[in-house]
Amino acid sequence: MSKNKNKKKTNTGVNFANALSQNMVVDRIFSGIQPTGTPHLGNYLGAIQNWVNLQEKCSSVLYSIMDMHSLTMPKEPAVLRQNTLDTTAAILACGIDPKKCFLFRQSLVPEHAELAWILGCLTNVPRLLRLPQWKMKRASLNSEGTVGLLTYPVLQAADILLYKSTHVPVGEDQVLHLELAQDIAQHFNKKYGEFFPVPKAILSTTKKIKSLRDPSVKMSKSDPQKLATVNIADSPDEIVLKFRKAVTDFTSEVTYDPAARPGVSNLVSIHAAVTGLSIKEVLHQATGLDTAHYKMVVAESVIQKFAPIRNEIKKLQEDKSHLIKILEDGAEKAKELAAPIYQEIRRLVGFQ
Amino acid sequence: MSKNKNKKKTNTGVNFANALSQNMVVDRIFSGIQPTGTPHLGNYLGAIQNWVNLQEKCSSVLYSIMDMHSLTMPKEPAVLRQNTLDTTAAILACGIDPKKCFLFRQSLVPEHAELAWILGCLTNVPRLLRLPQWKMKRASLNSEGTVGLLTYPVLQAADILLYKSTHVPVGEDQVLHLELAQDIAQHFNKKYGEFFPVPKAILSTTKKIKSLRDPSVKMSKSDPQKLATVNIADSPDEIVLKFRKAVTDFTSEVTYDPAARPGVSNLVSIHAAVTGLSIKEVLHQATGLDTAHYKMVVAESVIQKFAPIRNEIKKLQEDKSHLIKILEDGAEKAKELAAPIYQEIRRLVGFQ
Repeated sequence: MSKNKNKKKTNTGVNFANALSQNMVVDRIFSGIQPTGTPHLGNYLGAIQNWVNLQEKCSSVLYSIMDMHSLTMPKEPAVLRQNTLDTTAAILACGIDPKKCFLFRQSLVPEHAELAWILGCLTNVPRLLRLPQWKMKRASLNSEGTVGLLTYPVLQAADILLYKSTHVPVGEDQVLHLELAQDIAQHFNKKYGEFFPVPKAILSTTKKIKSLRDPSVKMSKSDPQKLATVNIADSPDEIVLKFRKAVTDFTSEVTYDPAARPGVSNLVSIHAAVTGLSIKEVLHQATGLDTAHYKMVVAESVIQKFAPIRNEIKKLQEDKSHLIKILEDGAEKAKELAAPIYQEIRRLVGFQ
Repeated sequence: MSKNKNKKKTNTGVNFANALSQNMVVDRIFSGIQPTGTPHLGNYLGAIQNWVNLQEKCSSVLYSIMDMHSLTMPKEPAVLRQNTLDTTAAILACGIDPKKCFLFRQSLVPEHAELAWILGCLTNVPRLLRLPQWKMKRASLNSEGTVGLLTYPVLQAADILLYKSTHVPVGEDQVLHLELAQDIAQHFNKKYGEFFPVPKAILSTTKKIKSLRDPSVKMSKSDPQKLATVNIADSPDEIVLKFRKAVTDFTSEVTYDPAARPGVSNLVSIHAAVTGLSIKEVLHQATGLDTAHYKMVVAESVIQKFAPIRNEIKKLQEDKSHLIKILEDGAEKAKELAAPIYQEIRRLVGFQ
């Protein structure tokens, strides 16, 4: 469904390479990450790596640690608190630079919640009840579903629109939510007068990284199989173990054919992504290797890539107050941007 | 349904007279009014009059002009803007004294929206879908229903709990919503540790004032029949006209029997409420009068009651900046109260 929708609205999304070309007008980029702790390989290759590139190319970039969204799934307060700092340490270690972007904790900018209320008054409930994530997450929790879980796509719309963002890097699973934000922006503009730019997607061109234990599903933090997911702060031994145990098939040759050979193809994708080489170049390097040996080549490339990041994460984690200050300073700057925009929204809706 | 529920939980509500007795511990009262412009007789007798009494009896009282809630029903921004000032002028004229309570515009205190997000993450959607007001209002608008309309009872819970309020004056139609706020408070306390007092209802003892054109429905601002509703700023001529046209029955004697004679009984209720006399005393005064003459007696009592209020409303409406300043000053004081409480909530949920 998300693919069809996406096809229908090709004018609303650009791919990552196009977004970086000099001809594109990208006035302001907004993106967010849920604080789930240290990211895994899929988070890094699918999102964080792009974030690092985008901060170099656009002069106004906001990245938010979405602690408000975290409340939509069960979580102990102490875990949320620690995860927020660990996620911050990790993305800083990956190269996010608070001098080049506003990096901030969402809950420190009250206007996110305030605008979400206003936008909720423009959003029909059945539209939200139809979203696949509402159904999937409710099923995964085996629960009736909370208001937070139903309405978080409206908060996402507020996250984006609060800064009059023009572009949003999104994964495929967020395309429907960005379309909702687009529709809400247009609804607001129609009702209260032209105000919000309709935000466009920047679609990641990185292949989805799959679970090492089941290449039919994507790599996930919450995978119960501990060997399925490579954390970017894993030790070299852990990385070697996880790749050694990676599920492939009974053919020993290394080829790239995601449909017929998803396991080994996932290894090829990871190898290409961490080395920055093309699939073709990577396959060339693997000529003559059987999959068992190739797994160790990929593991080594991952170790090499993340060794400096792992060290930096550890260093940053030692200074909690520094991390807190970065998120607070970022929030101050985000607020300065948001305040006059929200002031104008207040005036438009009749709050002053 | 609301009556049954109410009966089930008699321990959670007290009536107005008890609340004012010296033995009751009423630490903090919160109530709100939607800015629909100048209130009508039903608003005054059912709510505002009680508010005036309560501000004398309790040292911490908050009254909020609920502009955020106003967005849940269609309204032009200019109308909302004007209604906010008109409602403020009217309740000041009725005797609400900003020295004795915090009178403020809801949207000026961001913590209302922020806490609503957190509480929404503790509230199941089906509970809201079952509330009668969601069904009724959606039907009246002939619409699918917005997130604002579905979730405003959660915002009401936040309105109350943000100040750790202990008591809430409510009409009968709000009893289910207060029960939701009570349940949310208990759910929060269970999950994050004892924090919120469970707020109790202060039930109005005033009889519901009915439409003058159809005594089977309550008096309402949005009644399409213009003669149905007496505005407290109506001119003496308008008041006389509306009471003269009031629907009664074919019996000329004045008696009090709401079930059999709803029209004339409504007049008796109004007469008693505006004069402060008992039903019995009022009936005694009406001995020998036919309903046509009695209508004029009631009209005169209403004119007398509201003449000074009407003059004061006009005076206050002339100075918009004074009204705006009162709402802003009140919001500053409300914020000072809310900020440390919300700070503690942030800590409890893991936002810091």
